[in-house]
Parts: sequence; C-alpha cells; structure tokens
Amino acid sequence: MDIIKSLEWRYACKKFDANLKLDASQIGTLKKAFNLTATSFGLHPLKMIIIENDELKNKLQPHAFNQQQITTCSHLLVICIDTKINGDTIDAHFDLEKEIRGITEESISGFRNQLKNMFAKKSDEEIEKSSIYQAYITLGNLMTVCAIEEIDACPMEGFLAHKFDEELNLSDKNLKSVLLLPVGFRAKDDFMSDMKKVRKPIANTVIEL
Amino acid sequence: MDIIKSLEWRYACKKFDANLKLDASQIGTLKKAFNLTATSFGLHPLKMIIIENDELKNKLQPHAFNQQQITTCSHLLVICIDTKINGDTIDAHFDLEKEIRGITEESISGFRNQLKNMFAKKSDEEIEKSSIYQAYITLGNLMTVCAIEEIDACPMEGFLAHKFDEELNLSDKNLKSVLLLPVGFRAKDDFMSDMKKVRKPIANTVIEL
Repeated sequence: MDIIKSLEWRYACKKFDANLKLDASQIGTLKKAFNLTATSFGLHPLKMIIIENDELKNKLQPHAFNQQQITTCSHLLVICIDTKINGDTIDAHFDLEKEIRGITEESISGFRNQLKNMFAKKSDEEIEKSSIYQAYITLGNLMTVCAIEEIDACPMEGFLAHKFDEELNLSDKNLKSVLLLPVGFRAKDDFMSDMKKVRKPIANTVIEL
Repeated sequence: MDIIKSLEWRYACKKFDANLKLDASQIGTLKKAFNLTATSFGLHPLKMIIIENDELKNKLQPHAFNQQQITTCSHLLVICIDTKINGDTIDAHFDLEKEIRGITEESISGFRNQLKNMFAKKSDEEIEKSSIYQAYITLGNLMTVCAIEEIDACPMEGFLAHKFDEELNLSDKNLKSVLLLPVGFRAKDDFMSDMKKVRKPIANTVIEL
C-alpha cells in the first residue's frame, strides 16, 4: 500500500452514492482510529457522534447550508469537544493510566499535580481552544485513515455548530460540535471526483535546513 | 497493512536513536504527505521546515524545554503558518487552479470573488486562527503517515514558538512556527516505548445515532 497514492486518491467528496453504505468493519475501523488519535497529554477531550439515521441527517442538512454531502453520505461523523475539562477529568485520566499500565500512584502523582495546576490556571476559553486543536488533529488522522481504507470523506468546518448542538442535545452531554466528516463512497457523477489536485510545488512549501 | 495496528504501534517517542536516520525516500514521503494535506478551501497556508542540521537542533533545544526528542531525532519537522494570507494569496491559488486543471476564469470567478470578500472581512487574528487549525490537520495527517511508514514521531505543542521564529528567521519569511514533529526511530531505552496505550473505552467516546 502506497500512502502517497492513497492521499492522492482522496478528495473532499461533494456527493456520495446514497445506496452504498460502510459496513460494520469499516465503522469499527473509524471508531478505533478516532479513539487512537494522539491528543495533548493524552486527555482526549473529544467525542465522536456517528449518524446513520436518514431522518436526522435531513434535519441537520439545513444547518450545513443544505450541502448534499450531509444527506448522501453513508454515515455523518460529528467531532465534538468535551466542555467540562477540569481537575476531575485529569484525575480520571491518571486513574485510568494506573489501571491500564498497572503502575503506582507514586510514579505519576508529580505529573498528575503538575497537570491539574496547569489546567486550574487556564481560562475556559483557553481550555476550549486547546480541545478544538485536538479535534483538528483527529480530523487529520481520520481523513488519512479513510484514504487508506478507500472510504470517501468530506472535511467540513462550514456548518452552524450551535444548531447541530441544539438538534443533537449536545449541551446536555457537555459537548460542542466542532467539525463534520461525512463518509461513504463517491457518487459516479460527483463533479469533483476527477479534478486534478491543486497544490503548490513542494519546493515552495518545504524548507530544508 | 492494518491501519489500526499502525496506530497502536505509534506513540509519542521521547528518545530517538540518534544514529538512525530517515533516508531520502522517507523524507520524500513526508514532504509529499505534508503537501497533500487537506486544508480549508485548499489554500494550504502552511510551510514545513525540515531540520537535519545537528548544530541547529542544539540551538533550538533550549527553546523546547531541553527535551531530548529535539536533538536525538533524525529530522525535526517544524510546521509553520503563513502570516500573509490576503487577496493576493487567494488570487495565486485560483491562478494555480486554472493552470493545473486547465479551466476558464469564467468557471471560477464567482468562487474567487466570494472567497476574497470572505477573507477581506476577517481580522488578522481570525485568519491566523484558521491557519493554525490547518497546521493541526497537518499534524494529524503526518502522525498517521509516520505510523504507516514505521517512522517514530513526537507531536509537540510545548515549545517557545517566538524563540524558534527568531532562531529560524521566520518573520523574514512571513512564517510563524506552530507545531513540532521530531521524526526518526525510537531508542531501545526509551521508557515510553513499551507502555500500554491509555484510552477511554470506545463505548464512552463514540455515540451512534
């Protein structure tokens, strides 16, 4: 498998074939890949909503400027940030680390306290900003995973997040939607599918020292 | 190749084997993967600096809290944003699109003007924020590409960006450093290399609707 060929194969799919659905194994891969995304301090302040329900996709479409990716995709992934990241979150993370790695409190208590102190000094806005960055790392990871698995996808920043949050009752879950990634299989008549990629020459984008 | 196994294999490498170097083909893959990263409107407001020079790595290390990833890695990738994104940048993008895709001005002028108007209304801070998001997408993509290629890497947000910018004369190049990704091959004695991954159960991080 040539990763560069995979990255050249992918594009922002504007119209999916609504009859083609990801199977359980493909959805399983995306769930695992989401969960394995690297995040700042490993805190993973994220959740992913996977929407297969057509009625719900139809309700959400107007909040994404009626773009047809939303309703033609097989599954709509909504990458969300947790809105309650605090000392308890950090404690839960280190408790989980102790459990999974079978290590002592002594070996991690210094870092546990350091991180709690660091977060206690951050404003809610700073914490939210950092969580949003982690959502973008996730998007980058998932797009590449989709490309490797020959799953089409369309990264989307342009949607009314507060409307998605309302429709999906996200504030009740202490979540905010940040990014969308409809996934599925390109429609044969998607006008974007055979367009050449537009990229500056590498000589203009990479500096070697 | 099993992408999930690759993602499980990767970790934030804290110490590289300084004797093991990426070869030209591996560097070529990272350059291409960087350039192929999906970005908002395809504007790719990014540059990547690849530092192989040991003297320069030594100079930069103090500005990354003396972490040994900086000096033991094979190559230090510095992901930067362009600080001058304006109407000219957007024009250059659409001119490149016309050239690469062999399409007419008529077919893109509507979108060209729409995007120029959109950016003209944005503050410098908003444009910078958006560019930083694209840097994070790139980081997510590159970490996954590294994992597939069995290249070790360590994503780093924690460094003194203004000091890196000074040392690398980035303001002269209209760039700001945002993220680091030292790459290379894990040292046998990196204490992190055989630690189990700490992740919440997927049932707690994914919601299916």
